[in-house]
Amino acid sequence: MDEFDVETLAEPALTDPVLVEGLPGVGHVGKLVAEHLLEELDSELVARVYSEHFPPQVNIEDGRAKLASAELHAVEADGRDLLVLTGDHQAQDAAGHYRMTDLFLDLATDHGAERLFALGGVPTGELIDEYGVIGAATTDDLAEELEADGVEFREGEPAGGIVGVSGLLLGLGERRDLPAACLMGETSGYLVDPKSARAVLEVLEELVGFEVGFESLEERADEMEEVVQKIQQMEQGQQATDDDLRYIG
Amino acid sequence: MDEFDVETLAEPALTDPVLVEGLPGVGHVGKLVAEHLLEELDSELVARVYSEHFPPQVNIEDGRAKLASAELHAVEADGRDLLVLTGDHQAQDAAGHYRMTDLFLDLATDHGAERLFALGGVPTGELIDEYGVIGAATTDDLAEELEADGVEFREGEPAGGIVGVSGLLLGLGERRDLPAACLMGETSGYLVDPKSARAVLEVLEELVGFEVGFESLEERADEMEEVVQKIQQMEQGQQATDDDLRYIG
Amino acid sequence: MDEFDVETLAEPALTDPVLVEGLPGVGHVGKLVAEHLLEELDSELVARVYSEHFPPQVNIEDGRAKLASAELHAVEADGRDLLVLTGDHQAQDAAGHYRMTDLFLDLATDHGAERLFALGGVPTGELIDEYGVIGAATTDDLAEELEADGVEFREGEPAGGIVGVSGLLLGLGERRDLPAACLMGETSGYLVDPKSARAVLEVLEELVGFEVGFESLEERADEMEEVVQKIQQMEQGQQATDDDLRYIG
Amino acid sequence: MDEFDVETLAEPALTDPVLVEGLPGVGHVGKLVAEHLLEELDSELVARVYSEHFPPQVNIEDGRAKLASAELHAVEADGRDLLVLTGDHQAQDAAGHYRMTDLFLDLATDHGAERLFALGGVPTGELIDEYGVIGAATTDDLAEELEADGVEFREGEPAGGIVGVSGLLLGLGERRDLPAACLMGETSGYLVDPKSARAVLEVLEELVGFEVGFESLEERADEMEEVVQKIQQMEQGQQATDDDLRYIG
Repeated sequence: MDEFDVETLAEPALTDPVLVEGLPGVGHVGKLVAEHLLEELDSELVARVYSEHFPPQVNIEDGRAKLASAELHAVEADGRDLLVLTGDHQAQDAAGHYRMTDLFLDLATDHGAERLFALGGVPTGELIDEYGVIGAATTDDLAEELEADGVEFREGEPAGGIVGVSGLLLGLGERRDLPAACLMGETSGYLVDPKSARAVLEVLEELVGFEVGFESLEERADEMEEVVQKIQQMEQGQQATDDDLRYIG
Repeated sequence: MDEFDVETLAEPALTDPVLVEGLPGVGHVGKLVAEHLLEELDSELVARVYSEHFPPQVNIEDGRAKLASAELHAVEADGRDLLVLTGDHQAQDAAGHYRMTDLFLDLATDHGAERLFALGGVPTGELIDEYGVIGAATTDDLAEELEADGVEFREGEPAGGIVGVSGLLLGLGERRDLPAACLMGETSGYLVDPKSARAVLEVLEELVGFEVGFESLEERADEMEEVVQKIQQMEQGQQATDDDLRYIG
Repeated sequence: MDEFDVETLAEPALTDPVLVEGLPGVGHVGKLVAEHLLEELDSELVARVYSEHFPPQVNIEDGRAKLASAELHAVEADGRDLLVLTGDHQAQDAAGHYRMTDLFLDLATDHGAERLFALGGVPTGELIDEYGVIGAATTDDLAEELEADGVEFREGEPAGGIVGVSGLLLGLGERRDLPAACLMGETSGYLVDPKSARAVLEVLEELVGFEVGFESLEERADEMEEVVQKIQQMEQGQQATDDDLRYIG
Repeated sequence: MDEFDVETLAEPALTDPVLVEGLPGVGHVGKLVAEHLLEELDSELVARVYSEHFPPQVNIEDGRAKLASAELHAVEADGRDLLVLTGDHQAQDAAGHYRMTDLFLDLATDHGAERLFALGGVPTGELIDEYGVIGAATTDDLAEELEADGVEFREGEPAGGIVGVSGLLLGLGERRDLPAACLMGETSGYLVDPKSARAVLEVLEELVGFEVGFESLEERADEMEEVVQKIQQMEQGQQATDDDLRYIG
């Protein structure tokens, strides 16, 4: 295996596809959106990227081993072509992030991509009710477009910049004159967050021009809701017990 | 020294050998099996692999220094040829894991290996009585064979995937169309576990078709049993002392 | 992108420019001086250096993404040409530090630089009133010049040597016969320190021969002063509360 | 600068020199011996090795910056030629250790070295009175010679093997058929230990055949003795205070 190993599985003819990146990150927001698109829409696996910059690991699904990889899917969304990039891992080192992002950009432009959206979450540190979507872009035009679709641009946010592939898709995309934006759904940062993913997806629909159902995301959100409630009950129960003990003591 | 340095010590003529990997890992299960095979059966050291991806270290045995390496042994088991891969170290970085596994696969296929078994342990987090063996494979045929010999395939296990050379032998083996399986003995994860090694070895015997005595593994198991009992006594003694102190206090 | 990617933005004709380095470090002293020079004097952005040795990150300013980089500016200071090197990041690994410093020295000598000053802070571990400037140099001539301008040379200081680009500019500069010195302003080490930056800047003015106003640095110093006072008040308040509690308890 | 940069400063004609390595390590035992040899005997600096595997750092001596390096000195000891390797740093990564040791071996054999002694300390975890010297060697002949000069070979010691350049000089030296041994002075592991260094030096004198005075090592030992006493007094004083407090409380 070389530093990167691209396994090409299909050569679809796409029309001005939009690259949509949803790798693991804060609240798994980007990954949830990417997975939802693959679940709801017709898609074709275009390429798998293996790399020694990924963890030295196989995942096991139904007893079958699957080498760590990122996957590029061609997705048709109401007549618009998407290239959806997702996977289970990020690179494990700085140089790996840079080189892998460069490779993703090569793949995307080889398929004719002319713009890209990197999806992720921005941690707020507390449970939230209203899921805002924060933006960053490489061009004024794209920033205006985002604002028109409800994306917020807040001064000094995100404070720590954008790290990993999502950030570098913007940084390296700009250096290639490929208009790029990052959509970051607000999320507590503590839990997988399907509601934040829905907020990001709604913006993406507006920006690209397509519609999908939200049912499976809602189901996942309900499941997470139950998890949160159980945790809260456990904490309260714990507190009760603590109080009892104090009382006894 | 180059990145990898293969010292060839023998060129045995082998018939369809099976690669058996037992490098250090959870409960040292894989390594115990590999060492047991070398102890019980006729074997010949085929090659040593040195690498700057190993720790910068020599081990000392009887005052003699031995540079960190992995070793490939040809072993004859009831007429079946095995290639047993073992050693004292894993690679220290992600790229090292990938490249070293590729090298091991090169060596194995150079010697005609057509299938491989990676051996290891899967941590349960508690002391156990019944030592199940969990499996993962790269082909349906091999998975069926494993199941027929008592290997369990449990949904979502091992949860964290398989890390290191064992995992990559499956992931990179599959990419070379080399049928590969991982046999993981259940083990607490806290101690070197000869009983888990025996469970794995019994499955391996069935799969490959050979028999070895278990005496030395049983002796090691008895030794570990004593260690466990001493630890438990110490803990109970400690607790007794704590109680006394509380009582006095 | 390659390991390093130099984006050349201007080719100014400079006369015996002095390289002044102010990358992030202790108390951000060097960076504050570099930024102050760019704020107060006429400057032109000469080059941006991108590198996979920087963190894989974009910073966000007004919703626009900016890939991690170091910047080289040509600055005119009372008829003297400066090359001011600054940025938001240091390299993330040892080899990156060495290679990036070598590249900075290449850029500087390509523009005719014949001496260089690396700026930084030296931590004292306590809040201070008098801001001494400690020096280190690669030649006796330069050391004498520094001493004449009030820089102190103290035996065994800084105890841990000088780490990062500032240190290597001296170490690698000396190997190229490029006279180099490091000016280190004393600073607590806990806070961004504009007062320490001013002390370093005053020495630099003497050494190179130029003058700038200190107003904006003084404003920043006043802001920091307020921050320090608030922290002290909070600590005292906390202590008061603690006393109360103890009293009550 | 390349990965390694060897600055050659002299080309002495040496007769069967012995390489003596004393880089920083446990108790700084090896480094103390190397420094003592350079202090007591006639020596000439032969080469400096710079490397991006060293920390990105300059040390400051009398205000002058000195780039991290290892140094090779030719030393004449009662008619025997030594090549003494010392410095302030070890490599910072595994590959660096391997490659740097290979380079040191190249330098040593270029100068005709036919055997080598790596010096270090072995931690006992407690303050000690009798300073034994533990050994490891690459050949039986050398091991016998060491034993004849009072070096101890203890089964299973040192338990964790020998790490860093000292270990690899044996491991890689053996692969080049260069007889190599490691002399490890017992030391608490908590302090710089001139007494342990003296014990190692006495063995080295026997092995190579030379004599040096120990005065400066004894002075250093006395200094350390005072440090230890101060620490003990502080601990006792602390305990006294604690007792007082308890009594008062």
